[in-house]
Amino acid sequence: MRKNRMFSREVGKSVIGVMAVAALAWGSQALAMEPLPAQPPVPADNPLSAAKIELGKMLYFDPRLSIDGTVSCNSCHNVMTNGTDNRPVSVGVKGQKGGRSAPTVFNAAFLSAQFWDGRAATLEDQAKGPILNPIEMGMPSEAAVLDRLNNIPGYVAKFAEVFGGDKALTYDNLAKAIAAYERTLITPNSPFDRYKRGDENAMSEQAKRGMKLVEEVGCTACHNGPNFAGPALPTGQGFFQKFPTNQNSGYVKKYDLMGDTGLHSVTGKDEDKFMWRVPTWRNVALTAPYFHNGSVKTLEEAVRVMADTQLNKSLSKKEVADIVAFLNALTGEIPAQTLPVLPQPVNMSVVGDQ
Amino acid sequence: MRKNRMFSREVGKSVIGVMAVAALAWGSQALAMEPLPAQPPVPADNPLSAAKIELGKMLYFDPRLSIDGTVSCNSCHNVMTNGTDNRPVSVGVKGQKGGRSAPTVFNAAFLSAQFWDGRAATLEDQAKGPILNPIEMGMPSEAAVLDRLNNIPGYVAKFAEVFGGDKALTYDNLAKAIAAYERTLITPNSPFDRYKRGDENAMSEQAKRGMKLVEEVGCTACHNGPNFAGPALPTGQGFFQKFPTNQNSGYVKKYDLMGDTGLHSVTGKDEDKFMWRVPTWRNVALTAPYFHNGSVKTLEEAVRVMADTQLNKSLSKKEVADIVAFLNALTGEIPAQTLPVLPQPVNMSVVGDQ
Repeated sequence: MRKNRMFSREVGKSVIGVMAVAALAWGSQALAMEPLPAQPPVPADNPLSAAKIELGKMLYFDPRLSIDGTVSCNSCHNVMTNGTDNRPVSVGVKGQKGGRSAPTVFNAAFLSAQFWDGRAATLEDQAKGPILNPIEMGMPSEAAVLDRLNNIPGYVAKFAEVFGGDKALTYDNLAKAIAAYERTLITPNSPFDRYKRGDENAMSEQAKRGMKLVEEVGCTACHNGPNFAGPALPTGQGFFQKFPTNQNSGYVKKYDLMGDTGLHSVTGKDEDKFMWRVPTWRNVALTAPYFHNGSVKTLEEAVRVMADTQLNKSLSKKEVADIVAFLNALTGEIPAQTLPVLPQPVNMSVVGDQ
Repeated sequence: MRKNRMFSREVGKSVIGVMAVAALAWGSQALAMEPLPAQPPVPADNPLSAAKIELGKMLYFDPRLSIDGTVSCNSCHNVMTNGTDNRPVSVGVKGQKGGRSAPTVFNAAFLSAQFWDGRAATLEDQAKGPILNPIEMGMPSEAAVLDRLNNIPGYVAKFAEVFGGDKALTYDNLAKAIAAYERTLITPNSPFDRYKRGDENAMSEQAKRGMKLVEEVGCTACHNGPNFAGPALPTGQGFFQKFPTNQNSGYVKKYDLMGDTGLHSVTGKDEDKFMWRVPTWRNVALTAPYFHNGSVKTLEEAVRVMADTQLNKSLSKKEVADIVAFLNALTGEIPAQTLPVLPQPVNMSVVGDQ
């Protein structure tokens, strides 16, 4: 049964590039719950450097990447609030609501495909999207973004320092810098990680019971690997799952779980209907509300919903509490950061009265 | 003539408390341009402490103080972009535009009255306003704010640590903590400050010419003292000025400078028509666009407008450039800060789908 429900998909550079890949038979290795590695994978064409990370952080926090200067990457993926905005769906420029709940940026570097529907293969590809999305940051074109940054001498100098040459300030390089910063946003040393590394007292007894339960109940069929979002696949091979599988669950109607067709909304293919990239469990205690539409307010209810919609199981109150205790043991340490000071043009603003 | 145009006003705890005070004859001391003191005044009933400043910083950055969880104090008074949003007027919840341009929070601690119209006597009073303003942060009541914070255990503990007792989490204490943080937002060591302290090479020759010009032209009649916003008056005695005084200036119509009656819009008194608290010159090179309605895009034009509307003078291109060079010498050092991590409730969010 598991083989029928789990997919790994190659996600190309764009929506068009989505390719179906035969379901894989996961070895027990791939299914294990694992501690978070100290470093995420880094693509060969975008090596990390301190200067690049610093530039990426500036861009990540810069609301001038939105048409009216009000929305930055950090507005919805707020690193001060666990990488998300804790809203059902996010709010972009001009008060417009998006269709999906903002996934946390923390540990996104470990995912092999980005966005709820996995339509971006890399963090670099992902970073390019919201800036140009009319209901998110609303910039009309890549050229308009570059035009703004070219009017900010501090950015011109920083891009030249990081990427070299006289064509350093490009949209590709902007995305590379943001992705480099995002690769620093990982949360090690959760109680679970410390437990796995040998500290038997790092998790409560209740959390340990929950850890056994998520395997027995079947949750870890999908939520496994270091990020509890499926195995660590090569970049672009997203780990997808159909949700909901038990479409007769009362929760489906209650929380409108089929109002969005997931990957199908990108590819238009029937086989992609209700297929979603498996989201991480890390820091899930702090990223309410839950699901792609943010319709479920508490983690307890999210556990009940998942058991019923995916595994056709009804959990006891105690089982739910134990699983929630385990999920709380996946809260890691937010990396300490300095507050960036963004480069600024003198005697003028690059934002008008949009 | 100066005596007729300049006012110091006692601004009470609320709008209602505004009292006219006779115009004062300023001594030469009060009119001097002065370096920024290392510390701003601190009210006796709100002493600074590290824990209080830390709490205030969390609150300052917390978008959950707005009805839909999208707008924090920092959204409009962004300490990453020189304490403002560099927009003509700010954008609050649900994409609503405010009526005035966000003044910088940097060095606001040196002002003796807050808001463009000076209607708040203290930083504490000011902090209480935008949270409850329907077009800014939109919370319906103080009780609703406290209800949210009471659902975040980390805040409950922090308020108790800072303010003690079992009634530590109050709206007054929230404002006190935010004000304490804001008193750390000062920008020392501008080229002007270093020059005044004896470093003759800290300012360019052009900036030195500009420094003489602002006195000769008459700008420093109002823009004086350590904050270039009038003398350091006792808290609540705002330093007000009529703007525009030369109402026949072509700039008045061009930039709609009389579309807002300033203090009069608060008190309804005829004598308060077009009276405004004198804004700071510090970091003015980085806080475009200019004026209460943010209608003027560049500092050069702002200098021309002020000379014409306030002093009935037309400056040469060279004079404008010299004055702008001096104003650029008032850019200080932004204090280094760590990024706060905001306390969070587990397994739930305190923000709904507003």
